[in-house]
Amino acid sequence: MSDSAKTNPAHPRKLRDITQWDRETDVVIVGLGGAGGCAAIEAADAGAEVIVFELASAGGGSTAMSSAEIYMGGNGGTRVQQACGFNDSTEDMVTYMMMCAGPQADEAKIRNYCERSSEHFQWLVDIGVPFKDSFHEERAIMCLTDDCLLYTGSEKAYPFAQHAKPCPRGHNLQVEGDNGGPLFMKIVQENVDKRDAITVEYETRALTLIIDEDGVVAGLVVRQDLKELNVRARRGVILCAGGFAMNEEMLRKYAPMLTVPGGLPIGNPGDTGSGILMGMAVGGAAINMHEGFISLPYYPPANMTRGIVINDKGQRFINEDVYHGRLGAFVLRQQAERIYFIVTVEQYGDYEKVSYLGAPVAATGETVAELEEELGLHEGILQHSLAVYNGDCERGQDSLYHKAAEWLTPLEPPLVALDITPGRGAFIPFFTLGGLDTKPTGEVLNTQGEIVPGLFAAGRTACGVVRRAEGYSSGMSVGDASFSGRLAGRQAAEAQVH
Amino acid sequence: MSDSAKTNPAHPRKLRDITQWDRETDVVIVGLGGAGGCAAIEAADAGAEVIVFELASAGGGSTAMSSAEIYMGGNGGTRVQQACGFNDSTEDMVTYMMMCAGPQADEAKIRNYCERSSEHFQWLVDIGVPFKDSFHEERAIMCLTDDCLLYTGSEKAYPFAQHAKPCPRGHNLQVEGDNGGPLFMKIVQENVDKRDAITVEYETRALTLIIDEDGVVAGLVVRQDLKELNVRARRGVILCAGGFAMNEEMLRKYAPMLTVPGGLPIGNPGDTGSGILMGMAVGGAAINMHEGFISLPYYPPANMTRGIVINDKGQRFINEDVYHGRLGAFVLRQQAERIYFIVTVEQYGDYEKVSYLGAPVAATGETVAELEEELGLHEGILQHSLAVYNGDCERGQDSLYHKAAEWLTPLEPPLVALDITPGRGAFIPFFTLGGLDTKPTGEVLNTQGEIVPGLFAAGRTACGVVRRAEGYSSGMSVGDASFSGRLAGRQAAEAQVH
Repeated sequence: MSDSAKTNPAHPRKLRDITQWDRETDVVIVGLGGAGGCAAIEAADAGAEVIVFELASAGGGSTAMSSAEIYMGGNGGTRVQQACGFNDSTEDMVTYMMMCAGPQADEAKIRNYCERSSEHFQWLVDIGVPFKDSFHEERAIMCLTDDCLLYTGSEKAYPFAQHAKPCPRGHNLQVEGDNGGPLFMKIVQENVDKRDAITVEYETRALTLIIDEDGVVAGLVVRQDLKELNVRARRGVILCAGGFAMNEEMLRKYAPMLTVPGGLPIGNPGDTGSGILMGMAVGGAAINMHEGFISLPYYPPANMTRGIVINDKGQRFINEDVYHGRLGAFVLRQQAERIYFIVTVEQYGDYEKVSYLGAPVAATGETVAELEEELGLHEGILQHSLAVYNGDCERGQDSLYHKAAEWLTPLEPPLVALDITPGRGAFIPFFTLGGLDTKPTGEVLNTQGEIVPGLFAAGRTACGVVRRAEGYSSGMSVGDASFSGRLAGRQAAEAQVH
Repeated sequence: MSDSAKTNPAHPRKLRDITQWDRETDVVIVGLGGAGGCAAIEAADAGAEVIVFELASAGGGSTAMSSAEIYMGGNGGTRVQQACGFNDSTEDMVTYMMMCAGPQADEAKIRNYCERSSEHFQWLVDIGVPFKDSFHEERAIMCLTDDCLLYTGSEKAYPFAQHAKPCPRGHNLQVEGDNGGPLFMKIVQENVDKRDAITVEYETRALTLIIDEDGVVAGLVVRQDLKELNVRARRGVILCAGGFAMNEEMLRKYAPMLTVPGGLPIGNPGDTGSGILMGMAVGGAAINMHEGFISLPYYPPANMTRGIVINDKGQRFINEDVYHGRLGAFVLRQQAERIYFIVTVEQYGDYEKVSYLGAPVAATGETVAELEEELGLHEGILQHSLAVYNGDCERGQDSLYHKAAEWLTPLEPPLVALDITPGRGAFIPFFTLGGLDTKPTGEVLNTQGEIVPGLFAAGRTACGVVRRAEGYSSGMSVGDASFSGRLAGRQAAEAQVH
């Protein structure tokens, strides 16, 4: 076996082969993103000595690249929700998140997340994260003002609104522009830096875990300055190394849905799945590996919501007021060679100015018949779909797909069809949603549901509260990363020394 | 740790803890189904001593419960294909199977399967499997006569037929009724029994693997008559223990798509995933775990193919001449509260007599408008869909979903709508398609694509050539089980003694 084979994530090092420890601490954390940073703070505050190993030259991870609209609510509402007049119930939040996660929902994890969400809000405020008591009403993917609260999912859309009272739960940081992620990580970093119990070692790659004869995780092997170091973790190792959006082989093997034409992985270059692989190699179960966030970010402008999405049979297939990721998931389910977004010329004018989507124009029509013909659709089929839709708009009720009444305005020619077929030019960001199976505490579970002693995972390396493309809402990733990081940090800090 | 925990699949036993061997042999095989039986025969024929451990009181596995329409072709055609006038090309077979498997296709495995398919046919003939040189022309799920060759997939349907020349590749055994599986396993069993090098021990449960300090699989722990036995495998252990259709917890965790209302797991009670779990516990990668075969077996009668399937928006969404499993997969993708199968009264008459589907009648109509109203559909929408479809039938071209011309006859009232919504009464069989990642040789791979020494897997315990609900064809399971079993048997028999 070559040296490189010995120190790849699939081969844990055996404790009995360790002749010396190069570092010793209570809690070892892999990765200084949102999860790893919050884990370090909590572990230190619980009295543990902590070393964080970060691959990059600086902390931040994918959280720093995100908008960081943290998904929180329940318990009558966070301070911001209450100030903005929203009384959010924990049960509504649980119901919504359970529907989002679908058959693979982890109810214990979701319930814990919702029940402790207002406490998490307070913790964030306490470490210095600023939230303004204001509501951003316009439909948006991210809030570009310093306002806080916005709807960031499908809360107001069918079928969610029919089962859980809608409430905005995305909490944007008090900062202008799309700068929530950098600000969030700056604050986390400051909190890490000011705690003497935490050491961060940058430009250090975690290679593989160290296990004892009973399968207890006893430490971590890292590479620093071309040298391998053995790091003893007296209480536990927390893997916070992100997902695997940047690992093409893993995507092909585990998440083929994400290998769609035109798909662009988002996150930081370290999202290579190494944390998940290290966990699997010591018996941790990786679950939900096939799922990911995959989106066609068709708004802003919010007015796009008034358009309709059709396949090349001229049929709608989704209510167009859902979260953009849910629309993306349903686009991928169509047996169709083309998918179009149909909007009026006025709506197109707005789109041209501010869209992230970048979908090219497929056809325009002074009449519906002309558009239909230019798109090469079966004669009459789009005319029929639009007649049904416009009739529904006039009655204020989308009888087929239940788009909410506020978005129902008849689409009158001239019309524009954007080509949103994957691979034809539209921007299709994706990232992974599978990872190590964990208890709500962050303890990693094996395939039989037993704890792998000494091992914890949080953030995207774990399989968290968000489980499906069709049920994603913005803020659930940073929400889950920061919350699950905290829990894992505390659990590890309080673990028995081994 | 309790004794039961020590001997569950997630905890491999360590070689150094073995104080005595209760059995020793060259090759240990877990499970006497199609894969395990063929593995045993090949291993013995390659000179190895073999012990097979079977949980049940008799061999057979899920293969004995199947129709055993073995999927074979290529190389100009098997003897039967040629006799029936079909000249099957390997490239067409590869193209078809690659499209079936989609983005998660294992090209090396598929190519190997297709290239050696005619040789596999000959091997089956040599061990005594009878195939008649005849063609069963009618569209069927299984051949109830003793004829051999039939179309068992979507070969003649869009989009497959547009890319690979259609050819029937399902090979039914020469036996009346749905008795191919029992006959196949009877022949395999006879071959096993007559080889002195093979011992079979029934009513014996495989508990966990035994590994040495370097992670080499050295044997297997089994339980027999309430006692645990340590079994040494000098050359290797082959896991042929089926899939996990019978393990509800694993389904929920790994294959939530299969937890659909009304779904019925098919296979034998031993399909609990224990082989996959044992392999994962020694570092084997489990891949494609989310996928399964899931079907609405809507034919026979073949005439059902002339009907149309619609959602509760009155829209078709699939060409109805595809394999029944592909239709099942697309039904699950709809955002709809009801799915209907619309047929004429005459077609319904045939259906009543022979259907497996058992879908209840949702509505009938002397006119389309009446049917539409009874179904509670938006006014005019089914009338429109049927007008388009019937017009296409008259022109002999399904302009929307490309159903082949041979099935296009206008649907004239009176009409019947069957409710095929999952959970509303229709029969929805399913089984799993995920398993251990293997080389075409059957060697199990870890998460980094390296071989786990001493470990092999075949049949449903491995992730084989079939990868998706939407791309399944009958005969691919028994074809893959028997073929992959053979390759693993030979590879293990020829492995170095360790």
